[in-house]
Amino acid sequence: MLTVGVIGGMGPAATVDFLRRVIATTPATRDQDHLHLIIDNDPSVPDRTAAVTGDGPDPSPQLAAIAQRLEAAGAEILVMPCNAAHLFAQAITSAVQIPLINWPAEVVDEVKRAGFRRPGLLGTTGTLSAGLYQDAMKGAHLEPIVPTMQEQDALMDAIYGPQGVKTIGTKGSTAPSTLARVATNLSSRGADVAVVVCTDLSALEGLDQLELPVPLVNAAEVVARRTVALAYPEASST
Amino acid sequence: MLTVGVIGGMGPAATVDFLRRVIATTPATRDQDHLHLIIDNDPSVPDRTAAVTGDGPDPSPQLAAIAQRLEAAGAEILVMPCNAAHLFAQAITSAVQIPLINWPAEVVDEVKRAGFRRPGLLGTTGTLSAGLYQDAMKGAHLEPIVPTMQEQDALMDAIYGPQGVKTIGTKGSTAPSTLARVATNLSSRGADVAVVVCTDLSALEGLDQLELPVPLVNAAEVVARRTVALAYPEASST
Repeated sequence: MLTVGVIGGMGPAATVDFLRRVIATTPATRDQDHLHLIIDNDPSVPDRTAAVTGDGPDPSPQLAAIAQRLEAAGAEILVMPCNAAHLFAQAITSAVQIPLINWPAEVVDEVKRAGFRRPGLLGTTGTLSAGLYQDAMKGAHLEPIVPTMQEQDALMDAIYGPQGVKTIGTKGSTAPSTLARVATNLSSRGADVAVVVCTDLSALEGLDQLELPVPLVNAAEVVARRTVALAYPEASST
Repeated sequence: MLTVGVIGGMGPAATVDFLRRVIATTPATRDQDHLHLIIDNDPSVPDRTAAVTGDGPDPSPQLAAIAQRLEAAGAEILVMPCNAAHLFAQAITSAVQIPLINWPAEVVDEVKRAGFRRPGLLGTTGTLSAGLYQDAMKGAHLEPIVPTMQEQDALMDAIYGPQGVKTIGTKGSTAPSTLARVATNLSSRGADVAVVVCTDLSALEGLDQLELPVPLVNAAEVVARRTVALAYPEASST
């Protein structure tokens, strides 16, 4: 069984949601059957979207430092519950000897395995404007569909609120209704699946109960299951 | 702001519940305002109740090793979301230079601050049979009330299920109704508050909605708030 290092804190609630998914999907009947997870929830990592849009510092040095701390602590494989941070994955993989689970690659595999062709993407402006998922999907002969700029702004406002203060997950948050509206629009423009590629959106309570015209693939759930399969190979084959 | 090391995995779902409470109670508006948490979720720690009752190995060496790994990784204060494991706290505090938050002491403080006198205890057989909370409470002139052996067996069965397979938190778990029944019995024997001193019980969905004849104090919530106050002193004073 591999010790899993989790590069966390982006944001902290999203990390907790990801851990919950990993634990729920682990085929354990006793505490002692669970995975050894070491989680570094370091909030000093600069905002990823701000870095992509040129409005903030590069998070690469902090991400590399966390990865190195986790490797030094005994991690044998790394996973990072933040989609946008994968834009800086190169800084991590070149700083350590252990592998980093590749979220876009895992999500593309799942979308293809499920037989979808035109995934509609729901993520932050950083992730989408840099083409992180679009590039991986086009390389796999999928046809990604992204929100309009207006839809994207509405989605970011629903995550962050008017003053850049994260309001997602709080009472009265407009994130669920905004996500449903944008997913419906993506479907009307041809998407055959809505793919959530933002861990803050993945953590939304009631996400699986939203009424959408197309199925939903949640990147955090896909990668949580994959993390267990990779770290705990005997269990996943049963 | 202090870096908090979390000695986790006892059980993993209880650790996630505790992290969720820490994050929810942190006065943060951006990811960057949150605490730096390093969590070592090591499932190799032997069962605590089994160690106390003489049916299993001593978890002290593993607990000390986790604490040392967290200190080496940069933790400045330790917290351990497992009540029974505090029976082995001495092994931790003598292995590291950094402080370990003392759950029984924090819970006693909260019970006294709220004006209760006769706390009814809901915890595992390991925690209760070793007198961990009773000793701390009697030292503070409180009069703890514990379940009968029959009630205690019912509570353990509700947590672990018939074959020692943890069933708490699963669909159809009898833990909520058993907890409510035992708390009601404790109240009828004079308890003026029900104190949950098992992190698996603390993590029960709907715990705060249970209809009980007395108020409920949840050790995990008390210590989560205290963790934030200790690690993040400026925020807690606002």
